[in-house]
Amino acid sequence: MDTENNIKTLIIKKPLKLDCGKVIKNFPIAYETYGSLNSKKDNAILVFHALTGDQFVTGINPITKKDGWWSYAVGPDKAIDTNKYFVICSNVLGGCMGSYGPSHKDPDNQNIFGTNFPVITINDMVNAQYNLLDHFGIDKLFSIAGGSMGGMQVLQFISNFPEKSKTVIPIATTSSHSAQNIAFNELGRQAITADSDWNDGNYNKKNSNPGKGLAVARMAAHITYLSKKGLQEKFGRKLQEREDLKFGFDADFQIESYLRYQGSVFVDRFDANSYLYITRAMDYFDLAKQFKGNLSDAFLNTKAKFFIISFTSDWLYPTQENKDIVIALNSIGADVGFVEIKSDKGHDSFLLDVPDFLNALKNFIDKSYIENKI
Amino acid sequence: MDTENNIKTLIIKKPLKLDCGKVIKNFPIAYETYGSLNSKKDNAILVFHALTGDQFVTGINPITKKDGWWSYAVGPDKAIDTNKYFVICSNVLGGCMGSYGPSHKDPDNQNIFGTNFPVITINDMVNAQYNLLDHFGIDKLFSIAGGSMGGMQVLQFISNFPEKSKTVIPIATTSSHSAQNIAFNELGRQAITADSDWNDGNYNKKNSNPGKGLAVARMAAHITYLSKKGLQEKFGRKLQEREDLKFGFDADFQIESYLRYQGSVFVDRFDANSYLYITRAMDYFDLAKQFKGNLSDAFLNTKAKFFIISFTSDWLYPTQENKDIVIALNSIGADVGFVEIKSDKGHDSFLLDVPDFLNALKNFIDKSYIENKI
Repeated sequence: MDTENNIKTLIIKKPLKLDCGKVIKNFPIAYETYGSLNSKKDNAILVFHALTGDQFVTGINPITKKDGWWSYAVGPDKAIDTNKYFVICSNVLGGCMGSYGPSHKDPDNQNIFGTNFPVITINDMVNAQYNLLDHFGIDKLFSIAGGSMGGMQVLQFISNFPEKSKTVIPIATTSSHSAQNIAFNELGRQAITADSDWNDGNYNKKNSNPGKGLAVARMAAHITYLSKKGLQEKFGRKLQEREDLKFGFDADFQIESYLRYQGSVFVDRFDANSYLYITRAMDYFDLAKQFKGNLSDAFLNTKAKFFIISFTSDWLYPTQENKDIVIALNSIGADVGFVEIKSDKGHDSFLLDVPDFLNALKNFIDKSYIENKI
Repeated sequence: MDTENNIKTLIIKKPLKLDCGKVIKNFPIAYETYGSLNSKKDNAILVFHALTGDQFVTGINPITKKDGWWSYAVGPDKAIDTNKYFVICSNVLGGCMGSYGPSHKDPDNQNIFGTNFPVITINDMVNAQYNLLDHFGIDKLFSIAGGSMGGMQVLQFISNFPEKSKTVIPIATTSSHSAQNIAFNELGRQAITADSDWNDGNYNKKNSNPGKGLAVARMAAHITYLSKKGLQEKFGRKLQEREDLKFGFDADFQIESYLRYQGSVFVDRFDANSYLYITRAMDYFDLAKQFKGNLSDAFLNTKAKFFIISFTSDWLYPTQENKDIVIALNSIGADVGFVEIKSDKGHDSFLLDVPDFLNALKNFIDKSYIENKI
């Protein structure tokens, strides 16, 4: 274990064969833990983060100095109660918070990888993360949970390691990226690569930063995280610190100012090439395809208890795509619960203070943990 | 009238006071006509184009060499039958197909305007276009029609000139741009201004072109024109001329290739600054606000017959926003018909071969014309 800048890393020595065919070894996985692993080692929950998340699930993120991305859901007495459970989360492969990614050096030539980093998949991510179980000596997790791309990792993990978790909580996710999802991700990638400071991915070498392109990518994604109704209620046509329209191209409307802000703060904490790699992994995700088109087969070997959660106003990973997973599980008689939470907050609902969601999550986890003890 | 490069222009000598307060005069409005104006001059239909449209409604566009943008709806024997009706369409103020816009020279200093062109509104657009009636000696139009931003112009025109059209056909539109609409337009503007070749709008002077940024803006908009279901049915996860994923950043999926193509061809025909100006006009559009929040008041003085059309899968200007116009008209006892057309083709439905739509449009127009004759 290596500790640098508040980032804990586990060096994975064992070679990992990636889906692209390349083999990586001696690579770092950055992770964080919350709560304590009990003596039976039966209270561990592996949380998977979404596209722009990281290992700092809750509390103050030591790098950004802001609340962790799942602070509403994870912490003492929260839905995922760190007084009871031992929460582990790692930065995904391809990420930019310490795990092996495009801003690392290529061991073969000591150059920063840039776009020479191998294209990774959700499958590669979870195979790398699996090493954390050995590291902590955990034979079986109590749960795995995550929203959005985190949910994809949840599905892939239980498919790869059917015996390794008692419960499985995919949230606001999909088993296969839709054409519209790919389209929005491609838009983000095009915004980044259109930035002349991207320099074919070698911006680190040239001491430049494609921040403008990355900000545009973030704005595009951010719109998809919110619902039309939610945006209308929160912003509508409200003006930004002015009495009337200014007849110019400054931010007249609050929604413009908000998007610009979201873009600008993102650039400070995220790497453009990582954005390319992680969106690519999402677009490549198609769990059914791994089983010749039969999604049910992905879950044939697990006895885990599933709880799937969707949100009414999520148009990025709408309820129907979550239900498709439920249907696949039902068709093989799996133990599966499902709830659609009413919320105007769109896809972002899983990150926000949505009491019905947080209560449902808490109830499922705590009840399952007690049942498991009996 | 001035004819240059197949572009007919009318020079508007009369000063026009814009909403921003500036006055323009001796400015060109480029227009095209189809069919013949009859002796009574009672068969004229003024068509308004959408964001990226132009005056070349049907037939071959002499500039792009492609079909006019409303070729499915306008032409001999089509819904808007040019054997019967005299169709007029002009390029909007701020556009880039001959009408006065940011790529024109500022008469005060002979420099290309760039972002020194005044910010224009939908109201300014229709006030400029009104001059075409005088030009053709038309006292009253038979109809005004348009989809999307064209529909906004339809609503603004009849509000400004309540006696000047017998029938009014707003299609797939809104009376006020929503926060989500503004967000997507702002995303496009940010993509353009992020391009280092934009040069604060002075790219003409510097002989550069912010084509990459404009292409990204077009991709973003294009996604909003199509429905999630339509995209899934047309593209799904189909691969682009390859057997399997290539583990790189080229276009693996057809949807990626399609978006890149849409972006690249758009750049050849559209001006980046015009894109900024026209999206700004759309975002500023709020017809109710012009009447102290009461949309009905916008139509108090007209006896025109309205026919409003929306599409089930249009999530940019959804049925509800079109219905809000119907409700405002109903509440003052206006003559209004409404139809929601079932289509998976999203907002773009009004431009495409959607027979139910084209039939409804044709029936309303032809029936109204006959009734009007009796």
